[in-house]
Amino acid sequence: MPKVVDPQARRAAVAEAVWRLILSRGLEGVSVRTVAKEAGLSTGALRHYFAGQSDVLTFAMQLVIDRVRARVQALEPQPDAGAAVLRAVEELLPLDAERRAEAEVWLAFTVRAQTDPALRALRDTSYELLQDLCHRLVEALRQDEPGTDPDLRVEGERLYALIDGLVVHCVIRPDRATPSLMRDVIARHLSELTRSGWR
Amino acid sequence: MPKVVDPQARRAAVAEAVWRLILSRGLEGVSVRTVAKEAGLSTGALRHYFAGQSDVLTFAMQLVIDRVRARVQALEPQPDAGAAVLRAVEELLPLDAERRAEAEVWLAFTVRAQTDPALRALRDTSYELLQDLCHRLVEALRQDEPGTDPDLRVEGERLYALIDGLVVHCVIRPDRATPSLMRDVIARHLSELTRSGWR
Repeated sequence: MPKVVDPQARRAAVAEAVWRLILSRGLEGVSVRTVAKEAGLSTGALRHYFAGQSDVLTFAMQLVIDRVRARVQALEPQPDAGAAVLRAVEELLPLDAERRAEAEVWLAFTVRAQTDPALRALRDTSYELLQDLCHRLVEALRQDEPGTDPDLRVEGERLYALIDGLVVHCVIRPDRATPSLMRDVIARHLSELTRSGWR
Repeated sequence: MPKVVDPQARRAAVAEAVWRLILSRGLEGVSVRTVAKEAGLSTGALRHYFAGQSDVLTFAMQLVIDRVRARVQALEPQPDAGAAVLRAVEELLPLDAERRAEAEVWLAFTVRAQTDPALRALRDTSYELLQDLCHRLVEALRQDEPGTDPDLRVEGERLYALIDGLVVHCVIRPDRATPSLMRDVIARHLSELTRSGWR
């Protein structure tokens, strides 16, 4: 009789193992061999998930997307749009060890996709997901209904670029782009967006 | 009698060869072998510059730093601080093929430095050079004399993160982060900096 395996439970176990390895050893420490050991599976069983290092990276990136999406969807209602937008932006910034690990995976994956076409589709999904979220956040800050205001499009891109710039700075120089500095920059940006009235 | 070689002229020839290769084939197309062929030198002569691929990347990154620094230093005086700051920021953004190639080298180098300690010193030099420039640009926009205003520090970091976010977006999605969009985002940001009066 074949062994009964719950594919969802196994995928969750693999995902947790990958994430523990990223946190403890960085992305470089994640390979078919180390994940098999961490998850208590044979390397053969892992071939279902990873044929090679590109697949490991893709799995890690999908995990990051799932984590960010779940956190943003689970956000509690806030008393006003400004507070709600701030909470959502905080989920995208590397303000703690977990989110910093996510940022490291994102940056490594994004740059690897420049020379590995197999990674492009997921890279583009991630780009568009966050771009769309930033545009919706800017629309939420706007008092009246969203429209085709060209300024709104520019503001969405400005927020998106600002967030990704902070993420890159924190990944490469966490001693300079500290959580406190990132919070100050975002607070200033959001307060300005609210105050400016979209002139 | 030993052959007379002008080290500066040779270094310039190697730099031009590296840059032509980056423009025509991307960073992946730059190796000791391809640079030797492009510069009309033996691979032996090139060993003075590159012992391996890390050195090729370091050479390319130093070239980018030299190019950006030379352009910023050569900027013509402008009628007002706003115009001068805009011109300087434009030199940092990938608004044409040359500057886009610079941005690609910067991003690849920056991420490689995460796992290659030999690249860290130059990565940090580049980080601090641009950080310092952004702070000086924000100070130049300020009407009164520069001081220890905490807002000024936050504004410098905000401009720096915004620029690097645009650079990353343009490298990975040039179809979305177009020169026209980058110009709109920067124009809006600088006009806001000038208008806000640093409340």
